[in-house]
Amino acid sequence: MTPGTAAAQSGLGTLTSDLGILYGGDYNPEQWPAEVWREDVALMREAGVNLVTLGVFSWARLEPRPGDYDFDWLDEVLGLLHTAGIAVDLATPTASPPPWLGLRWPETRAVTRDGVRLSHGSRNHFCPSSPVYRERALGIARALVERYGAHPAVRMWHIGNEYGQVCHCDLCGAELQAWLCRRHGTIDELNRAWGTSFWSQRYDDWGEIVPPRAAPYLLNPSQVLDHRRFVSDQLLALYLEQRDLVRQLAPGVPVTTNFMGFHHATDYWRWAPHVDVVADDVYGDPADAQSPAMLALTHDLMRSLAGGGPWMVMEQAAGAVNWRAHNVPKSPARMRLDSLRAIARGADGSCFFQWRASAFGAERFHSGMLPHAGPDTRLHRAVRAHGAELRLLAPVLGTRVEARAAVVFDWSSWWAAEEPAQPSDRLRVMAQMQSYYRPLWQAGVAVDVAPPGADLSGYDLVVVPQLYLLDDADAQNLRGVVERGGVLLLGPFSAVADRDGHVRQGRFPVPFADLIGASGEEHCPLPDSGAPVASDAIWDFTAHMWAERLRLEGGEAVAEFMGADLEGCPAIVRRPHSSGGEAWYVAATPPQQVLDEVMRQCAEAAGVRGVLDHLPDGVEAVRRGPVMFLFNAGSEERKVALPGSFHDLLTGAHHAGAAHLPPEGVVALIERTS
Amino acid sequence: MTPGTAAAQSGLGTLTSDLGILYGGDYNPEQWPAEVWREDVALMREAGVNLVTLGVFSWARLEPRPGDYDFDWLDEVLGLLHTAGIAVDLATPTASPPPWLGLRWPETRAVTRDGVRLSHGSRNHFCPSSPVYRERALGIARALVERYGAHPAVRMWHIGNEYGQVCHCDLCGAELQAWLCRRHGTIDELNRAWGTSFWSQRYDDWGEIVPPRAAPYLLNPSQVLDHRRFVSDQLLALYLEQRDLVRQLAPGVPVTTNFMGFHHATDYWRWAPHVDVVADDVYGDPADAQSPAMLALTHDLMRSLAGGGPWMVMEQAAGAVNWRAHNVPKSPARMRLDSLRAIARGADGSCFFQWRASAFGAERFHSGMLPHAGPDTRLHRAVRAHGAELRLLAPVLGTRVEARAAVVFDWSSWWAAEEPAQPSDRLRVMAQMQSYYRPLWQAGVAVDVAPPGADLSGYDLVVVPQLYLLDDADAQNLRGVVERGGVLLLGPFSAVADRDGHVRQGRFPVPFADLIGASGEEHCPLPDSGAPVASDAIWDFTAHMWAERLRLEGGEAVAEFMGADLEGCPAIVRRPHSSGGEAWYVAATPPQQVLDEVMRQCAEAAGVRGVLDHLPDGVEAVRRGPVMFLFNAGSEERKVALPGSFHDLLTGAHHAGAAHLPPEGVVALIERTS
Amino acid sequence: MTPGTAAAQSGLGTLTSDLGILYGGDYNPEQWPAEVWREDVALMREAGVNLVTLGVFSWARLEPRPGDYDFDWLDEVLGLLHTAGIAVDLATPTASPPPWLGLRWPETRAVTRDGVRLSHGSRNHFCPSSPVYRERALGIARALVERYGAHPAVRMWHIGNEYGQVCHCDLCGAELQAWLCRRHGTIDELNRAWGTSFWSQRYDDWGEIVPPRAAPYLLNPSQVLDHRRFVSDQLLALYLEQRDLVRQLAPGVPVTTNFMGFHHATDYWRWAPHVDVVADDVYGDPADAQSPAMLALTHDLMRSLAGGGPWMVMEQAAGAVNWRAHNVPKSPARMRLDSLRAIARGADGSCFFQWRASAFGAERFHSGMLPHAGPDTRLHRAVRAHGAELRLLAPVLGTRVEARAAVVFDWSSWWAAEEPAQPSDRLRVMAQMQSYYRPLWQAGVAVDVAPPGADLSGYDLVVVPQLYLLDDADAQNLRGVVERGGVLLLGPFSAVADRDGHVRQGRFPVPFADLIGASGEEHCPLPDSGAPVASDAIWDFTAHMWAERLRLEGGEAVAEFMGADLEGCPAIVRRPHSSGGEAWYVAATPPQQVLDEVMRQCAEAAGVRGVLDHLPDGVEAVRRGPVMFLFNAGSEERKVALPGSFHDLLTGAHHAGAAHLPPEGVVALIERTS
Repeated sequence: MTPGTAAAQSGLGTLTSDLGILYGGDYNPEQWPAEVWREDVALMREAGVNLVTLGVFSWARLEPRPGDYDFDWLDEVLGLLHTAGIAVDLATPTASPPPWLGLRWPETRAVTRDGVRLSHGSRNHFCPSSPVYRERALGIARALVERYGAHPAVRMWHIGNEYGQVCHCDLCGAELQAWLCRRHGTIDELNRAWGTSFWSQRYDDWGEIVPPRAAPYLLNPSQVLDHRRFVSDQLLALYLEQRDLVRQLAPGVPVTTNFMGFHHATDYWRWAPHVDVVADDVYGDPADAQSPAMLALTHDLMRSLAGGGPWMVMEQAAGAVNWRAHNVPKSPARMRLDSLRAIARGADGSCFFQWRASAFGAERFHSGMLPHAGPDTRLHRAVRAHGAELRLLAPVLGTRVEARAAVVFDWSSWWAAEEPAQPSDRLRVMAQMQSYYRPLWQAGVAVDVAPPGADLSGYDLVVVPQLYLLDDADAQNLRGVVERGGVLLLGPFSAVADRDGHVRQGRFPVPFADLIGASGEEHCPLPDSGAPVASDAIWDFTAHMWAERLRLEGGEAVAEFMGADLEGCPAIVRRPHSSGGEAWYVAATPPQQVLDEVMRQCAEAAGVRGVLDHLPDGVEAVRRGPVMFLFNAGSEERKVALPGSFHDLLTGAHHAGAAHLPPEGVVALIERTS
Repeated sequence: MTPGTAAAQSGLGTLTSDLGILYGGDYNPEQWPAEVWREDVALMREAGVNLVTLGVFSWARLEPRPGDYDFDWLDEVLGLLHTAGIAVDLATPTASPPPWLGLRWPETRAVTRDGVRLSHGSRNHFCPSSPVYRERALGIARALVERYGAHPAVRMWHIGNEYGQVCHCDLCGAELQAWLCRRHGTIDELNRAWGTSFWSQRYDDWGEIVPPRAAPYLLNPSQVLDHRRFVSDQLLALYLEQRDLVRQLAPGVPVTTNFMGFHHATDYWRWAPHVDVVADDVYGDPADAQSPAMLALTHDLMRSLAGGGPWMVMEQAAGAVNWRAHNVPKSPARMRLDSLRAIARGADGSCFFQWRASAFGAERFHSGMLPHAGPDTRLHRAVRAHGAELRLLAPVLGTRVEARAAVVFDWSSWWAAEEPAQPSDRLRVMAQMQSYYRPLWQAGVAVDVAPPGADLSGYDLVVVPQLYLLDDADAQNLRGVVERGGVLLLGPFSAVADRDGHVRQGRFPVPFADLIGASGEEHCPLPDSGAPVASDAIWDFTAHMWAERLRLEGGEAVAEFMGADLEGCPAIVRRPHSSGGEAWYVAATPPQQVLDEVMRQCAEAAGVRGVLDHLPDGVEAVRRGPVMFLFNAGSEERKVALPGSFHDLLTGAHHAGAAHLPPEGVVALIERTS
Repeated sequence: MTPGTAAAQSGLGTLTSDLGILYGGDYNPEQWPAEVWREDVALMREAGVNLVTLGVFSWARLEPRPGDYDFDWLDEVLGLLHTAGIAVDLATPTASPPPWLGLRWPETRAVTRDGVRLSHGSRNHFCPSSPVYRERALGIARALVERYGAHPAVRMWHIGNEYGQVCHCDLCGAELQAWLCRRHGTIDELNRAWGTSFWSQRYDDWGEIVPPRAAPYLLNPSQVLDHRRFVSDQLLALYLEQRDLVRQLAPGVPVTTNFMGFHHATDYWRWAPHVDVVADDVYGDPADAQSPAMLALTHDLMRSLAGGGPWMVMEQAAGAVNWRAHNVPKSPARMRLDSLRAIARGADGSCFFQWRASAFGAERFHSGMLPHAGPDTRLHRAVRAHGAELRLLAPVLGTRVEARAAVVFDWSSWWAAEEPAQPSDRLRVMAQMQSYYRPLWQAGVAVDVAPPGADLSGYDLVVVPQLYLLDDADAQNLRGVVERGGVLLLGPFSAVADRDGHVRQGRFPVPFADLIGASGEEHCPLPDSGAPVASDAIWDFTAHMWAERLRLEGGEAVAEFMGADLEGCPAIVRRPHSSGGEAWYVAATPPQQVLDEVMRQCAEAAGVRGVLDHLPDGVEAVRRGPVMFLFNAGSEERKVALPGSFHDLLTGAHHAGAAHLPPEGVVALIERTS
């Protein structure tokens, strides 16, 4: 198994073989009187709901005062759902402790960088290191699992919610010290790794180390990097202690928590082995034209975290969200397109936050599957229609998306690359990720996301958009792609730092200079006017924002700077190898169209092709198992040429030679073996 | 009396019948040596000053150390003013305690949301809940009233200054708990009202509640709403305890404090019944072209707070202010226009901050009636000229502005509507207020501002620009307008929430759907491209920012969305009723010109007309008592057709058939009864 | 000696007569293993390095735990350097204490305005008032000076680094109180000076005064002003106690610290008398087209701080810095140009931060003289070439730049002018400084920078761009320029406040109204449309941002506002005096070209001329001693007419009648005496 991918996917398989594609959402009956519960369950059945997540924020309802439990209402709700054949993903309600916890034990509340201890009144205000919080959280979790571990409705356990909080208190400081001691072994090694000889920061003892806190100026970037690693591991440890409890008391029931895509604070490569089901919260902005590609990339990450196997959407919005400054709602067509995109990219479940829109609280304007205006609404009709059509997609259940291309991504590198005081804060990792992913997505090329240490032997094309920090062993791993005859495309500002965030000494990219046949000596953020670039292999263009001063050493210049101060420096280099492989390096941030062409040439060299040739602009194509999905996110009809005769699972229509995709339309085609 | 309007207006009447229109300003003799006082009083007399506000920031001068009073200088100043025939509005100097208070009793200093206890060195740093502060504030107030309660110069008492501070300390927490207990009665009811089942926020006891403080994410919006209500009431209680002291020790002398227009923190509908004189601080930005209309709206609010009777301008700038980033000064013409606008809209006094510009302190660049450069200045000559001309306006003293149109405004709704995590933070209550007020102002229609619970029986046209939060009883009150044959115009996102801020369940606007003959199901903040709207009754236009998904149910579509995702939904609906009344609903934020036309049609349907027909663009017309004021805020001369022959109080000129208004000119016309 | 200029310049003279022009940089051997030291020293020699600054951030390395010293490594490094003939500027490493200091004695860590005590993990987190910090800092300094005071390599001592930190703790409060007591003598005088009668801020006792801290609204501006004065003096006292120690233990070795140009927090007029060498850190932004003029102005300030004698560049970047958001690197041509500009303007040393770029720490992307990529780089070749060519400039060593024009600048005035709540925060002191300096710079006029109390008798033209705050005696001093027959050019908003920041009463500029023959009454920040101005002597133009309402009283209007509200007011006034002198006043912020023309006329009237007539646009000309430097910062070749035949020190070329300057080129010409 590739490092950083989920361990026990069997859980989802058992569930979906019983229930089909999972469909449903978070359900918060504690916000409604009991008479509404019956209406809810009836409407769920009509909508095809087969799974709800229960109890995520119920701690205060379940334990209104320390040790005083109230489970009666939950018994009733579980009974109602079970009778209706709706499975339950039961949450340990530990994301948001009741007010009494933080009031009686102030140390259970998190502290900011400035030393402000946070208050209740919102959510997730706990300190992840507090022994009292952890004990109380385990207490309510234990009570729940003991009571419902064997309940037939409970088919999945959901630990906490959207792990992501950071605390800077002394308890966390002590945990950080212990983590650092485990990582570095000796204080001398820590001093070396953190470069504490800079600015007189030498530590004499583990006890001298504090979390990053308010300081007069820039913090030590290696300290911040290790702190980010610690935060992710600390949250994982929180998850694990509840997961272990559940596994012990409810053996055989899959356990999960909800991921948040490319969530900055949590290194999911380290988390994924510990969840039985990879589940994601997906909130693309319908007002952002780039959002479909970003959603696709995120789904590809989730599938990769699941080792290529099925995963599920745990949360998405049926209409608008409420937490953006201006929340343009999803149309029903868009909701359907987004949900099916996840299925096409490997999801076996498509769930929502939440079933019934809240009437109060901070998320009262977050849409639900059932709006404030009730079932007689366009949105709810769409929810019902979608629930019905998902049943038509049973052929994809449990199947995989096979990819020969991979995009490499690493959380440590992301963290390190965007610390302050870099050459330019305009060079952003996720923007680079999207720029390099986009042409593959447009061409219908299946892509996995891989950590730098992954087994890359199955990939003919490996793309590294921006991997600032790179361990020596991982660099060796990436070199293997070319040595085996594959194509490796490296983006700018990659392999600059080692695992501790130290800048490698020598001509960059140090571990790859010979591989690409060029080496660099200076990072050159560009003036706003940019720098002209000439290229026979592509076309002439102007580079903006970022450039690097390189010279050729055996490679060939695919493009070359013409500007005064970079005159004659290669902007894009390529070096073919005797293995048949090629190494490419892009020493700039070229316009998207240039990058598209670079990627086209790389894919061609690697022999990597899309699902279909000649995809019209704006049509997304994905093959999952036996099914070829085609999406048209645009507002114009698109005609797609097909190599044969197909059957659309969603409509039953036949398409021979071509499919006509209406605006915001999708087809799920299976080849007809006449 | 309409809810939320001032109780005892007699106070102002007695004063103005003695003094005429009030004219003067804040006077801070403690900033100047005694020889300047004599010069000041002489110059005041020349300028026509008849009232000064004294002592607002004199606490440290009057009580340099605890219990050690120094009144001699104040005796002398009061004597000088009295001898000169200048009346005094004497302040309790409790807005800004001396340094010694906060140093000896740190708990008297306010605390921010982040727990930072504020320092002295600025002003208003006190905690409104601190018993020590309140006792000391009452102490200095008592000493003043005991000494000067019967002083013949003291004709008004001025409590504190610009109440508005917020503190988040534990003392305030305890007061909040007590206030909540009074409001909600039981903790169960509070849990219901606050929707604490959301995010596990259930309270078991009043003692668990804290003011809104630093938290990891969004706060409970109902908690924040109740806290805002509490803050306003808490400040009112502060005011009241000093007012009661003054009333007891100086019976018969009117008591006031200075309001600040549409000031966010204080619900003046609840304050107004407790002031004897409604007094306002008015600081329109002369660099803002929209400022005349906004000033007019604010004056209409003040007059409405005064129950339709006279009010006064307590503070305005004679030239520039100092607290904007870039302070374009008022011209003398503009100063005069602004002052007369207040008179026209019901003010019987026009005062300034401050008499003599300070040489030091944070407001040293705030203009005074007497600039740093002395009396031989354009500004001071204008001050003198204006003092003289105000005496010509005696005919308006005590008279009213009669309005048949009202604009509805509510502080709770404002607070609730602009909490974070709404559908869009671009929809702003005051912007909506101005958009709906503007066409009425342009047409010279007299407008009152009313709280939603006001007696609306006198109004033929009631406009509700955006009343997000609305109590059931108040909704009923608004429906009465149509039932009585009037016209009710509702703006978007109105009546969404009930008094607790809970979103009403059902098709919106729930309490009015039948009345308007249409109902909605989704709030639709628009993408930046907007949405096209077709209208025969108005004209085709593009709506930006905000839309709602409605369907007709008996009403008629005055305008209809044509855009893809809102295709066919009504954008503006109208429903005539058998009473002869009409209900209108605007499910969008249309361009101002469209709104102007909607308002024109509503006013026509209601039979509401302006003071004059055919007002030229940019001319503002107001009738107060026997006088018709015409203002030209523009830089071009304007000719206004007049229905008869008039006499200008300000110049003595006669105007028959028409008046020619010079740039930045004004006339105060009385009809000639030949 | 002019107030505020350095005392003992002999130090630099001894050094440079031994070493020639100083060339080198900060050297941080503690960041590298010992084998690198040898390579460093060898490369330094090849590059012509003759001075390195050592140990600036070595405290934690030298004293890893309290009282436990480790000097062996430093012995070795000093030995290596000395053997190679490289002199050392040895630092007291007191800018950044080791973690153990702040952990054992938390009161040694600084506190923000909000009361947050800062943490270690960055640098410079100490409280300047902490007795423990000061004692420990003196301890490590003493240990160093005792050990190395007589070391032959140590030719200069460098105290701390870039003094600038501000702390708001109670220890600083007590020091502030003592400082205020020394400044004001009595609490009554303090109350007068601070205008505490405004907003009830009267102090009864020194103990009641606190540093500026979080407050609800604007702070007392005189309090803030005095606090800024205190901060500068407090830091100076820190410097002085270490300097005195060094002087005592290492007599005869010059002592310095590194200034930071127009650094806001430190009044270098008060510092300069206490350094033996004026040394500056110079970081112009190569992406900013205005940067050459700003660099020139800063160098002129440094030369003036040095009493006209030599100074040195202590830090500059060889390529990019890392602390801007987007760090465009310097080209080698630009690096050379910038370095030579400093030499031309009086520097006898040109050093860099730092020798070898760091591999880790917050400044790992700050360029060094030796980049990460090593010596085989364009940058390092340029460093070597520059080291070589500096030796050719020996003729300038110790020589002066003679100026007959001065620009007046004062820190107190800068502080006071940019407090909040001014007429406009768009009027910025440094922007005004640059606008008035620019035409002199363009014309090749030599300019000194002078404090308002300087001996101005040597100047024919004195320019006061914006001197908001001005002491009475200093005003008298400025008047002397005109009385002696010189030209005084005053910019807007000058002489507004007295030394305490009180606005002067009367028509402004109060101390100069008779001198300029005009007086003002109102500051008039302009609406965005600006105000039209007519001028026969210049040309018609539109003024933006700032204007003042003036009237003529004996002077002549060089330009006059035509706009409605300023109609007829003079915009620029001039008054010739019987002495032959002239006083000018600019009551606006005119376009740069207008200001250029005003300055041309003023210079002509003063008989002040540039180094050369008819300088082409973009060519900078400076005469230092026998050498005339010509710089072309542009990207086009420039031809400069020369009055005779010259020899270029840098190339040996002869130039007769004209010199052709290549893009980014420079010549250092000495006249040929055939």
